[in-house]
Amino acid sequence: MTMHDTSDDNVDQIIDRAASASEQWKRAIIAERTRALDAVADALDQHADELIPIAQRETHLAEARLRGELRRTSFQLRMFAEMLPEGLWLDARIDHADADWPMGAPRPDLRRQLEPIGATLVFAASNFPFAFSVAGGDTVSALAAGNAVVLKAHHGHPDLSAATAAVVVDALAEVGAPEGLFQTIYGTEAGVRALRAPGIKAAAFTGSVRGGRALFDIAASRPEPIPFYGELGSTNPAFVTRRAAERDAAGIARDFVASVTGSAGQLCTKPGVLFVPAESSLVAELEAQQLPAATPLLNGGIESGFRESVASTSGVAGVRTLGAGADDAADAPAAVLFAASSQTLRAEMDTLMSEMFGPAALVVTYDDESELLEIADRLEGQLTATIIGEDDDEIAVDLLPKLSERAGRVLWNQWPTGVSVTWAQQHGGPYPATTAVGTTSVGMAAITRFLRPVAYQNVPQGLLPDALKEGNPLGIARRVDGILVLP
Amino acid sequence: MTMHDTSDDNVDQIIDRAASASEQWKRAIIAERTRALDAVADALDQHADELIPIAQRETHLAEARLRGELRRTSFQLRMFAEMLPEGLWLDARIDHADADWPMGAPRPDLRRQLEPIGATLVFAASNFPFAFSVAGGDTVSALAAGNAVVLKAHHGHPDLSAATAAVVVDALAEVGAPEGLFQTIYGTEAGVRALRAPGIKAAAFTGSVRGGRALFDIAASRPEPIPFYGELGSTNPAFVTRRAAERDAAGIARDFVASVTGSAGQLCTKPGVLFVPAESSLVAELEAQQLPAATPLLNGGIESGFRESVASTSGVAGVRTLGAGADDAADAPAAVLFAASSQTLRAEMDTLMSEMFGPAALVVTYDDESELLEIADRLEGQLTATIIGEDDDEIAVDLLPKLSERAGRVLWNQWPTGVSVTWAQQHGGPYPATTAVGTTSVGMAAITRFLRPVAYQNVPQGLLPDALKEGNPLGIARRVDGILVLP
Repeated sequence: MTMHDTSDDNVDQIIDRAASASEQWKRAIIAERTRALDAVADALDQHADELIPIAQRETHLAEARLRGELRRTSFQLRMFAEMLPEGLWLDARIDHADADWPMGAPRPDLRRQLEPIGATLVFAASNFPFAFSVAGGDTVSALAAGNAVVLKAHHGHPDLSAATAAVVVDALAEVGAPEGLFQTIYGTEAGVRALRAPGIKAAAFTGSVRGGRALFDIAASRPEPIPFYGELGSTNPAFVTRRAAERDAAGIARDFVASVTGSAGQLCTKPGVLFVPAESSLVAELEAQQLPAATPLLNGGIESGFRESVASTSGVAGVRTLGAGADDAADAPAAVLFAASSQTLRAEMDTLMSEMFGPAALVVTYDDESELLEIADRLEGQLTATIIGEDDDEIAVDLLPKLSERAGRVLWNQWPTGVSVTWAQQHGGPYPATTAVGTTSVGMAAITRFLRPVAYQNVPQGLLPDALKEGNPLGIARRVDGILVLP
Repeated sequence: MTMHDTSDDNVDQIIDRAASASEQWKRAIIAERTRALDAVADALDQHADELIPIAQRETHLAEARLRGELRRTSFQLRMFAEMLPEGLWLDARIDHADADWPMGAPRPDLRRQLEPIGATLVFAASNFPFAFSVAGGDTVSALAAGNAVVLKAHHGHPDLSAATAAVVVDALAEVGAPEGLFQTIYGTEAGVRALRAPGIKAAAFTGSVRGGRALFDIAASRPEPIPFYGELGSTNPAFVTRRAAERDAAGIARDFVASVTGSAGQLCTKPGVLFVPAESSLVAELEAQQLPAATPLLNGGIESGFRESVASTSGVAGVRTLGAGADDAADAPAAVLFAASSQTLRAEMDTLMSEMFGPAALVVTYDDESELLEIADRLEGQLTATIIGEDDDEIAVDLLPKLSERAGRVLWNQWPTGVSVTWAQQHGGPYPATTAVGTTSVGMAAITRFLRPVAYQNVPQGLLPDALKEGNPLGIARRVDGILVLP
């Protein structure tokens, strides 16, 4: 592993460069931003054969999974690049002066758009070494919004971080982006110092509840508090209705286990608790599933955390082991399914609804579907909640709205892993799923996190930002005197 | 003054009722919400003659000002009501399933909209007893978004709060809104208890930096942190260019003093510091202004705070009194204008750029326009920043973008007081102007604060919210497969 300069002086210089790069990047025309994002995407694709082996060595993830993840990462960069010229994300609004404004006083000429928030600190995640790391979703949405990025590399894949960062920096330099637009820092101390720096105006994070909350608290307690967009933890409950279990117990059992054990269960949207009717063959089908052989987890910290959470679940009276994978070893924990009754769950909800980050899940048997409503009422905030049901299941009419109050994404007859990058995607929910309930870290709406509104009153045309000029030189959709006007 | 039950039990019951009302209100169709907002607006107008005298007695504000403010308040309710059916605020997005999604994995059917955040706690302000109080901007935007509101009344106008609340509650009951949709609590302790209650999902505040920061810290340190939309403090600097001062020194002096002393200077957007060229007649024109006679401030706390901040400014070596109003009295401080050189300001920036909430301002003389850029670089976050200039003033090309980085609203040749309620208004800026830099508390975008995104994946048509159904039953603009589609 390469050594990195983590001295305070170096961190401070990095922040200074980022602040100044942010000021330049803010003024870059949209075409420069799209060119930069496309250049990074192309460079990542071109360096795939160099990056993938480093990622395999450092994360123990399979090659196919990593290649897919890298493809997703460059796709995401290109999708943001494609979105930028369309400009709806600027939320441009123009109110012309109106002497007869019914408020009782004349309306001045007011024009408002979203502008870059300023230099942004991104904490990389361990479990997606490409898509939620150096050039991942937080980085691309902050850059697309017009901000410089300081990336705190994850200690789980330092060499990959350095190699990816070099690709990003070179690609940005080749298209003439400002120096310091993208920089990396290493180590917890450097990350905390950067988070406290006045030059940093927003931060994003994907990781554990404990780590994320500690950083959120630092961001909130700064003399100038800044937005901290943390994606922390989620159990992602899935509810199988009685009739769905009758229809396709075998299929449900197979697909659930695949969703739980993919990427060795190290996904933030892994369905961690499955509610199934006690009186159905689904329990037996789940018991009969062959769990995959043990594979090493991302790193030692993840592994010990996983073992702790599994021990905590299995230590609850009334919890039994429904099935376990072969080859449990010192450095590769076996996948495991637990089972408990809904009575047990309700008595030990805090423990049993805690995330087990790794290849484990809990199957909860219920007697009556109405129990699901009571349980839904007690859920903490979730990234996702899933119903496996029949279209005319009566329980869904009440259960689905309850779940929408507690989760950012509600699924029907699909499994929550495999988060698609789209216009309508939502990856974020009430705390502890995220620290900022109104935001998403995946999908095109993620850009909004790194923007802030500015209104211009009575400002001459020549001094207005292009998006707000009378002639609409950017050719974007705008709300003019309250009416949405397409270009 | 009426006595109010501020017992813990009563506060807890109020929160419980609010949470349950919020759940009902969330499901109310748009037409019910618009009817409720319109009903409150009508009721306020009808009760004007009853409410205005109470407001005069409790706030010492003039009748004309209060009548204008009440008109603004009912106008604001109607404007939100009018916006609701248009539905662009729902940010509805529909991505149809796509087997060939270039990300590398099929895209599922994903549909996303903004939904109500949950029961909201609103802390009323003292200086706008109608527009930022019981039925003010925070209340209406939270209600419009589909949430119940618990209003913590301001101690400065308790009788007006109770009278206005009775009007609101009656109007809501008449149109059949859920019981508990709008409730009031009284006293600091009750406010803090409510802010800590798990049933409260967001809070809004307008007031001082000290009080607002203390509440922000409580909101952020909850087990489940919630968004706290605080509008705290702002000095609202205004910069007069050399050529503008030459053109119309008398007009600038007159309009500045009017903006500073209107409502006895008790406006969050009062221009507290005016930068003027030392070598111009503007200083003499300002000195020649007749300042209005002393009037009592809103309440004793405001008055003692004002006297402290004035003493702190006048205590800085190099600060002189440029002019003062007549009739300084124990219960009615005189208006005052101070003057200092830009050197003095730069040496004592923290003290001299602090808000003096009341009828006072500081005039800062500069020698060279380039100094303005240096000063702009050092500004804290502001609600507004103003340039009084000529359209072809070279300095504006650099100064205006710098100000846009530090203020939420940038004005040209107009004064910042008199915040219009419009589509494009922005009332909020970097800290300490607001605690949530990406938001506004005035204008139609204020609704976004009380919404959170929810995505539905593969959900049957019959279970989807109306805004996301294929047939577009609400008839709203939506982003479908990435393209904005008008109804």
